[in-house]
Amino acid sequence: MPADQLVQNLESALSMVPLIDAHSHIDPLSPVSKSLDDILGYHYYTELAHSAGMPQTLLAKDADPRDRVREIVRFMDRYDNTAQYGWFLDIARAFLGFEDGRKLVPADADRLFDVAAKTFAQPDWEAQVFAKSRLEKVFLTNEFDDPLKGFDTAKYVPCLRTDALVFHLDRPDTRRRLEAISGVHVRDGATLRMALARVFVHFTRNGAKACAISLPPNFHPAKFDDEHFYEQMQFHGFQDLAPGVFWLIAEYCRDFKLPFDLMIGVNRRVYDKGVYQGQDLFDQRTSLVQYKDLFNAFPDVTFPVSVLTSAQNQELVAHSWIFPNVLPNGHWWYSNTPPYIRKDLTERLTAVPKTKLIGYYSDAYKLEFVKPKYGMYRRILAHVLADEYVRPGALSETDAVALGTRLLRDNVKEVFKV
Amino acid sequence: MPADQLVQNLESALSMVPLIDAHSHIDPLSPVSKSLDDILGYHYYTELAHSAGMPQTLLAKDADPRDRVREIVRFMDRYDNTAQYGWFLDIARAFLGFEDGRKLVPADADRLFDVAAKTFAQPDWEAQVFAKSRLEKVFLTNEFDDPLKGFDTAKYVPCLRTDALVFHLDRPDTRRRLEAISGVHVRDGATLRMALARVFVHFTRNGAKACAISLPPNFHPAKFDDEHFYEQMQFHGFQDLAPGVFWLIAEYCRDFKLPFDLMIGVNRRVYDKGVYQGQDLFDQRTSLVQYKDLFNAFPDVTFPVSVLTSAQNQELVAHSWIFPNVLPNGHWWYSNTPPYIRKDLTERLTAVPKTKLIGYYSDAYKLEFVKPKYGMYRRILAHVLADEYVRPGALSETDAVALGTRLLRDNVKEVFKV
Amino acid sequence: MPADQLVQNLESALSMVPLIDAHSHIDPLSPVSKSLDDILGYHYYTELAHSAGMPQTLLAKDADPRDRVREIVRFMDRYDNTAQYGWFLDIARAFLGFEDGRKLVPADADRLFDVAAKTFAQPDWEAQVFAKSRLEKVFLTNEFDDPLKGFDTAKYVPCLRTDALVFHLDRPDTRRRLEAISGVHVRDGATLRMALARVFVHFTRNGAKACAISLPPNFHPAKFDDEHFYEQMQFHGFQDLAPGVFWLIAEYCRDFKLPFDLMIGVNRRVYDKGVYQGQDLFDQRTSLVQYKDLFNAFPDVTFPVSVLTSAQNQELVAHSWIFPNVLPNGHWWYSNTPPYIRKDLTERLTAVPKTKLIGYYSDAYKLEFVKPKYGMYRRILAHVLADEYVRPGALSETDAVALGTRLLRDNVKEVFKV
Ligand SMILES: [Zn+2]
Ligand SMILES: [Zn+2]
Ligand SMILES: [Zn+2]
Repeated sequence: MPADQLVQNLESALSMVPLIDAHSHIDPLSPVSKSLDDILGYHYYTELAHSAGMPQTLLAKDADPRDRVREIVRFMDRYDNTAQYGWFLDIARAFLGFEDGRKLVPADADRLFDVAAKTFAQPDWEAQVFAKSRLEKVFLTNEFDDPLKGFDTAKYVPCLRTDALVFHLDRPDTRRRLEAISGVHVRDGATLRMALARVFVHFTRNGAKACAISLPPNFHPAKFDDEHFYEQMQFHGFQDLAPGVFWLIAEYCRDFKLPFDLMIGVNRRVYDKGVYQGQDLFDQRTSLVQYKDLFNAFPDVTFPVSVLTSAQNQELVAHSWIFPNVLPNGHWWYSNTPPYIRKDLTERLTAVPKTKLIGYYSDAYKLEFVKPKYGMYRRILAHVLADEYVRPGALSETDAVALGTRLLRDNVKEVFKV
Repeated sequence: MPADQLVQNLESALSMVPLIDAHSHIDPLSPVSKSLDDILGYHYYTELAHSAGMPQTLLAKDADPRDRVREIVRFMDRYDNTAQYGWFLDIARAFLGFEDGRKLVPADADRLFDVAAKTFAQPDWEAQVFAKSRLEKVFLTNEFDDPLKGFDTAKYVPCLRTDALVFHLDRPDTRRRLEAISGVHVRDGATLRMALARVFVHFTRNGAKACAISLPPNFHPAKFDDEHFYEQMQFHGFQDLAPGVFWLIAEYCRDFKLPFDLMIGVNRRVYDKGVYQGQDLFDQRTSLVQYKDLFNAFPDVTFPVSVLTSAQNQELVAHSWIFPNVLPNGHWWYSNTPPYIRKDLTERLTAVPKTKLIGYYSDAYKLEFVKPKYGMYRRILAHVLADEYVRPGALSETDAVALGTRLLRDNVKEVFKV
Repeated sequence: MPADQLVQNLESALSMVPLIDAHSHIDPLSPVSKSLDDILGYHYYTELAHSAGMPQTLLAKDADPRDRVREIVRFMDRYDNTAQYGWFLDIARAFLGFEDGRKLVPADADRLFDVAAKTFAQPDWEAQVFAKSRLEKVFLTNEFDDPLKGFDTAKYVPCLRTDALVFHLDRPDTRRRLEAISGVHVRDGATLRMALARVFVHFTRNGAKACAISLPPNFHPAKFDDEHFYEQMQFHGFQDLAPGVFWLIAEYCRDFKLPFDLMIGVNRRVYDKGVYQGQDLFDQRTSLVQYKDLFNAFPDVTFPVSVLTSAQNQELVAHSWIFPNVLPNGHWWYSNTPPYIRKDLTERLTAVPKTKLIGYYSDAYKLEFVKPKYGMYRRILAHVLADEYVRPGALSETDAVALGTRLLRDNVKEVFKV
């Protein structure tokens, strides 16, 4: 049953836009999948299969990849209603020759595993995926001591991820790694600043275009004075420094002119025995008002903000409407399914200047996921543009495609200067 | 003006599915209405009429039932926009011969009262309602000292309601009732465990298939040690034991293999002078993160969770997506109207394994309400299945009906083993 | 591309309903615009232009109005996706002869500025706007010491705004103004009561039909005793009196039979350097449960309640469903865009008695905004009535128009007795 013609036209036009994916976890040294196990080992599938009853036995590191794939596919008829299942079907169809309209059954696991092995082994597979996804550039998530060597930073754009610096400076290992990359032994505010400056120099010299961090619901940035840094470092094992280290990083984002991606709302390890990367949840009781001082103190830093819960989207809309330096950024994690995207996108589009809307990012671990995830987003975007702008007579089809292109591409280019 | 054909087909197919209603307040010894007063005395009608200006005079116990019905009907033209009015119209049409398309006016009260009296007096009325509603089984809400005698537990499935044990153990009357049913005089943790075990034995021997409780927004389960139980019982009048008693009940749910229905979010007696059962509201500031320890500690207990506010639905979706033992359960109370059901259902369907979705329960006090409430739900379910699955080409009509059937029936059977 | 016929019919019928606008910031001595600068100086445009990058230079008081208008129009192609841009286009078309279907470009600024100057200079412009907007009456927002002279209170309905009394009694200037209008020197609870009584006499004698206040998210009304008033006034500079002064005002609303409009949720001055009136945001973590004691203590006071966030709409729906004296009132500020109105309206319509729903108010500063804002609301209302009532067969077109009229007009007349 076809969607209506207008939506089809819009979706089809939007699918021609070359993508710049502003956030991913791609490893540039191993950007594509080597086996179907790389696809189905993605936490969305292990989470859903486990949630639906799959034991974690086959998720062990030394388990046979083919057995693991069989098991995850075997459980799919318990979660084939989900958006994530839809992504897999898209991948199977677009990359593995799985026939349109055919139902996926457990018996398909082996065949798909073999086809994937052969397909992914092609020497130009990476280039094929770029081409088939119309992908131009993809942002990475780099640890602060990443050497940033061995890949093309024009295609793989470095992004300085600062979670460890902010939240784990009390771990000796973090400090050792910081000393190794910066050559600075941190023991007070001054040396911390020096070390961070070196990290920023390292990253910007290597083409980094953004800084990023994920934050718990109760986080509250604050400026710490040197005395406080000294006291905590010398006498309290570098503990409780997160608000102040975060603030310093914002200062360097200002000085080095990097946008600072804030990904707000995650509570880590809520389900202790969950699958790898499937242990985090959130607490809806959080507010962007916690970032009031930050947004006021750094008018020259652009803050692309992702929120984990759709209920907080209105705060994001209102802050982006009022603060010139706050921008809504994509649809993150638990809000990255059609009903939330549809709602949050519509709310943003009708109230925030269009030049500030970063529509989407893939958050992918392997390049093969760029295509199905953006595909889902474009379908929803086409629907929203049709219903909110074209049908009421506010925009022509051509202008609606231009608006969609702005969200998909133009704003990423302008905000991150890529 | 007819809905579109696809939605009609789906709704019609779903209306053939025999229902197992997983939560109600039916009295199995008096399951059906005896007069129209039993229908319109339901708190939804007294609340709305009172909210719209009706004085509470005629709600007194000794008021004339016919006068009360007249009064509630007289106020209907102030709330005939509501979903609840729609339920009443369905009942009048399906059970009382009220003509389709006719407007309800105050003058109808007397005629309907008389028709109801005659209709409900038929000796096979209960069987008729079961048949007309395609109802197979309905879960009850039984106080912990319910004798569970005199009814067919294959049709009326006992469910142990534990609010009094958890929240009112400081009332001497609760402890007397507990001693009466268990034969145990509770004076410390050990005797409390013994008494609870006897209650669970009594219930499971009599066919109970679930344990249930409603919880305030600020509730936080916790494991108490025996010393703490002793101290509170001996020296503090059994006060502040709720978190710990709750925890013990979860332990017995594990041992006796009963799912534990959590109905989260109600603040009791917010409007002191409200009508009977029309005094409770909520506080949106609550989080499922309060149940983190519980969900981790009891991996073998299934927790079907109902939340009172739609804003918390995303937490429920995400917890059900991550925790194997957490399941979204129906649409409760203030979230049991079409816009909330539509939103919450769509969010759940696209992100939680389908085998974990318990679609709906009636929460009814009289069996006549099963039909209109499930009717409302099926209409919305048909729309959502059409829009999210059939029209985009993800499911055939047949498969969409199977998915709907899973929510309506299959999962209730599997989760509660009925 | 035309909307469907049913929606068009409903919208067209609703557009004939004469409006009574229950909340605005119109200055009755200068109700209409004098130049296009009055239109585009509205904070919605300065906020969006500034948020999209416009420097605030031209927003200075002594800047040239024509230059300011040029600048704001020049930035419009950064926010022409917003609902607020749609209002401006409606104004340009309805009042300034801007051609339907033409795109607005920076070059239009001058021409529109000139047309506006000529148009707004017509001696009967105010009457024309009333007629073209089908506006019958509009409520004002009057400071407590407004002389209320020089305008027709049948058209411009006074409303006592009490923010200063409640939140700024610690400012000597507020107390001086209170003494000037009331003739009472406030120094304790008794004199405060006397002064407030004089203010209420002054307002009700001059045709006031409502009292109003905007409240921060963490506000919690409370009854203060005279001792507490005395202590704070004599020894603590009149500080921290807000909860108690608010309570006294509720008492006078009761005694003088005025509805008390509560506008809940605004945090003032979050963005310090924002444009004029573009500095306020909110904190989603708030609950109507904070008003529990108030709603219980004043059963005879009608509280039309506006909430700033759509996430709180369910609390408003549930409180209006349970408390006879709580009514949902319009769509305020950050919730006054189509997606929020659509959601909140649908939720209210299906659960709150229709006689309690105050559909909309303009919140306008100049009369020209009544027409586009109500136009947006009526379009959404027509859609919701079509989808929720007419298409499912619950209401005829005629009855749906009657329901819409009730929200637009009848309830305002009944609730505020105008
Ligand atoms: Zn990520
Ligand atoms: Zn119940
Ligand atoms: Zn206002």
